[in-house]
Amino acid sequence: MSEQRLTHVDEAGTARMVDVSDKAATVRQATAEGFVRVAPETFRLIVSGQAKKGDVLGVARLAGIMGAKRTHELIPLCHPLMLTKIDVDLEPVESENAIRVTATCKLTGKTGVEMEALTAVGVACLTVYDMVKAVDRGVTITDIRLIEKEGGRSGHWKAAE
Amino acid sequence: MSEQRLTHVDEAGTARMVDVSDKAATVRQATAEGFVRVAPETFRLIVSGQAKKGDVLGVARLAGIMGAKRTHELIPLCHPLMLTKIDVDLEPVESENAIRVTATCKLTGKTGVEMEALTAVGVACLTVYDMVKAVDRGVTITDIRLIEKEGGRSGHWKAAE
Amino acid sequence: MSEQRLTHVDEAGTARMVDVSDKAATVRQATAEGFVRVAPETFRLIVSGQAKKGDVLGVARLAGIMGAKRTHELIPLCHPLMLTKIDVDLEPVESENAIRVTATCKLTGKTGVEMEALTAVGVACLTVYDMVKAVDRGVTITDIRLIEKEGGRSGHWKAAE
Amino acid sequence: MSEQRLTHVDEAGTARMVDVSDKAATVRQATAEGFVRVAPETFRLIVSGQAKKGDVLGVARLAGIMGAKRTHELIPLCHPLMLTKIDVDLEPVESENAIRVTATCKLTGKTGVEMEALTAVGVACLTVYDMVKAVDRGVTITDIRLIEKEGGRSGHWKAAE
Amino acid sequence: MSEQRLTHVDEAGTARMVDVSDKAATVRQATAEGFVRVAPETFRLIVSGQAKKGDVLGVARLAGIMGAKRTHELIPLCHPLMLTKIDVDLEPVESENAIRVTATCKLTGKTGVEMEALTAVGVACLTVYDMVKAVDRGVTITDIRLIEKEGGRSGHWKAAE
Amino acid sequence: MSEQRLTHVDEAGTARMVDVSDKAATVRQATAEGFVRVAPETFRLIVSGQAKKGDVLGVARLAGIMGAKRTHELIPLCHPLMLTKIDVDLEPVESENAIRVTATCKLTGKTGVEMEALTAVGVACLTVYDMVKAVDRGVTITDIRLIEKEGGRSGHWKAAE
Repeated sequence: MSEQRLTHVDEAGTARMVDVSDKAATVRQATAEGFVRVAPETFRLIVSGQAKKGDVLGVARLAGIMGAKRTHELIPLCHPLMLTKIDVDLEPVESENAIRVTATCKLTGKTGVEMEALTAVGVACLTVYDMVKAVDRGVTITDIRLIEKEGGRSGHWKAAE
Repeated sequence: MSEQRLTHVDEAGTARMVDVSDKAATVRQATAEGFVRVAPETFRLIVSGQAKKGDVLGVARLAGIMGAKRTHELIPLCHPLMLTKIDVDLEPVESENAIRVTATCKLTGKTGVEMEALTAVGVACLTVYDMVKAVDRGVTITDIRLIEKEGGRSGHWKAAE
Repeated sequence: MSEQRLTHVDEAGTARMVDVSDKAATVRQATAEGFVRVAPETFRLIVSGQAKKGDVLGVARLAGIMGAKRTHELIPLCHPLMLTKIDVDLEPVESENAIRVTATCKLTGKTGVEMEALTAVGVACLTVYDMVKAVDRGVTITDIRLIEKEGGRSGHWKAAE
Repeated sequence: MSEQRLTHVDEAGTARMVDVSDKAATVRQATAEGFVRVAPETFRLIVSGQAKKGDVLGVARLAGIMGAKRTHELIPLCHPLMLTKIDVDLEPVESENAIRVTATCKLTGKTGVEMEALTAVGVACLTVYDMVKAVDRGVTITDIRLIEKEGGRSGHWKAAE
Repeated sequence: MSEQRLTHVDEAGTARMVDVSDKAATVRQATAEGFVRVAPETFRLIVSGQAKKGDVLGVARLAGIMGAKRTHELIPLCHPLMLTKIDVDLEPVESENAIRVTATCKLTGKTGVEMEALTAVGVACLTVYDMVKAVDRGVTITDIRLIEKEGGRSGHWKAAE
Repeated sequence: MSEQRLTHVDEAGTARMVDVSDKAATVRQATAEGFVRVAPETFRLIVSGQAKKGDVLGVARLAGIMGAKRTHELIPLCHPLMLTKIDVDLEPVESENAIRVTATCKLTGKTGVEMEALTAVGVACLTVYDMVKAVDRGVTITDIRLIEKEGGRSGHWKAAE
């Protein structure tokens, strides 16, 4: 695949679902991350004090897992996939008043699972946002990106730190 | 509501859906934004050349509109809402090699529509990502945030620039 | 509204959801119809003999009702609506070896329910097709159209016979 | 399978999902078509003039692709399937003031994909209808049918012209 | 309404969605309960020891809340509703080695919310089952019933103990 | 797997989706049952007289089949699965004024289908409830349990009578 072409756009310039019918079914895994940045006081509310430790994060973790399963409904040109693993973690990063969300998806299939991992991260971040928005209007969701990818033609890939 | 408490967490520390039964139904509107940052070459592929101008962006715009309607399915503690307006726009920002996504949602109802606007932005950003991921693994989705909000008890609010 | 413009397309030529925020909530109702044309032998299988009278039609009727509720998920620019009535009927038309499907939807709301009635018809027709496709590959779904519409600014309208 | 029996109806006359557990997983493909017939003036609005060429059609194309993925949710007795290809095209047919919709679905699986192709056509047709309904109440969706089918026990089949 | 007729079945014996178009929109609330009965050892695993106290129950609580929002998609003749409150609680009942699930739903609308409360209970019970099924095949979900109902024509109703 | 651990809960006590990536794809089948207990008069309404014999039961059967397909959307830690068979039956048990619901699901896959069979039963029971609730507020859904399971590492298992 040349770097010059968008795979989802045909010669006529129309966005299309990529035909993966003839691709081999291989083990594929992808990990994505993202951050929810909040005010210092909000950060303290999330990680300690009033909230049962982990409950805000627990709700967001569940939402991320369930969101990954809906990826093909949300992203128009994604294929339906049979994920065999969805792992979502939320970790408070005190030095940045942020929650770091990571998600790993895996399957044996004909196409990669980057979008599933990224969607899990996106939905988990939005869920954290939802639960703190009444006390903090300045929340920002940032730096959602792929950090690792295995399987398929392109093999193992890892983002620079 | 004091700024000291998370509205979605009760005294026992359990995250809950906020009961809005007794709130007044008023006109509510919210606007959110977010950015998809890509490599310069990817940016050029999106806005000109191979792709019909706007087709990648057009698919993402549709995905954002449809995503807003699914907010209550994705975000566990969001209420089902009857949106009367969903507007999503994608605008290339050449100086930053980024696509800026904005979304505005509106209804007459008992609770705000921030999450709907933010979900529209999130899904539209993920859709742009999906269509360029094969040519650019370094894509980042950033700075998803609320920029304006009207209606409800808290009145009009606008984010600082 | 002039007959010269598509309401879902803005000045720049971009398809948009119509903003119905400022429309009045009135009682609105719409009825649509459609036909599934089959071979004579298939027609007999549906209405008599092997199948419990009405079972193929009963499954399709249910599918139509449930489909109407999903309209806003399927049709990108449709608003979510709170239907208060969904009626779907399937009637064998022997002289044409066809099943006639009619659907009526109703609500008190800011926008019409034509698409909900039409989607109910479409899904019910597809469901009949599914159940007979193994014995008849020449099935055709035809003449899906609106036949009556009440409420909203345009008042009562009825299709010519 | 005899042509005398509806495969979805058991001896007691009850409609059932066909058990495909013991069928072989083979490559299966199906293509369906359908038409949206509009008034001449509406036809011109769709293909030229006000609308950005292709935008009405582009929205409908996306809706068709996304609709195909929901087939098993809409059609009660359809199996969930892992489509590897969904192609939807909309082509103006000037001589008939119609939009012709075609859809092709493909997978390696235990059951055919006719219903997925037909559902894609149905949803795309309904989406065109939605966007023009405000200027043209006489729109009709017609002649939705299977035009080609490959794979499975019955091999290659093509509809007569 | 006479007690002699099923409201969802018309004169011809066909099950139908009840037309609530002309009902008044009033405040309606319903509470349902159900039980998941497990082996004593399983009960101890759920409430103490290995599992973080409440995590199995927390996942089920979320699933119940989200399930309530899908009621009209699952139950064919239910209307789409705009719930303003969904409360789900899971409480260990040590004397019976059971988890008691209760759910309360509320809205201002034209039809009651019993099915929403019952669906929340059902989905939460199934979720508890899912998480313990690998260690206990004898789990039973029992005694799902309505315990209280307010609003609508029939006023306040409470189940006998 | 020791009987001492919940498979969905990790060392830190967090509920997780089980990673089935490395499990073998084998034929798996599960059968579940449940009961809807009603008043004697309600029982008579369901099985004879006013309702077309089987129509209440027919609607519930369809709902159960469609519900099984949504299991992974409803139960947070369930994997998406490609069911090849879903059979739902409803049988009046006159001696108990109850409807007995049974459901069997089957596939070739990496994880069992107990939850799919149980969800089908649960949704079918709720659907019967919905249709009789206006004439009988004392309806109870009881004894939902797994009755047989084949395939996977644990082989064939059958519940005691």
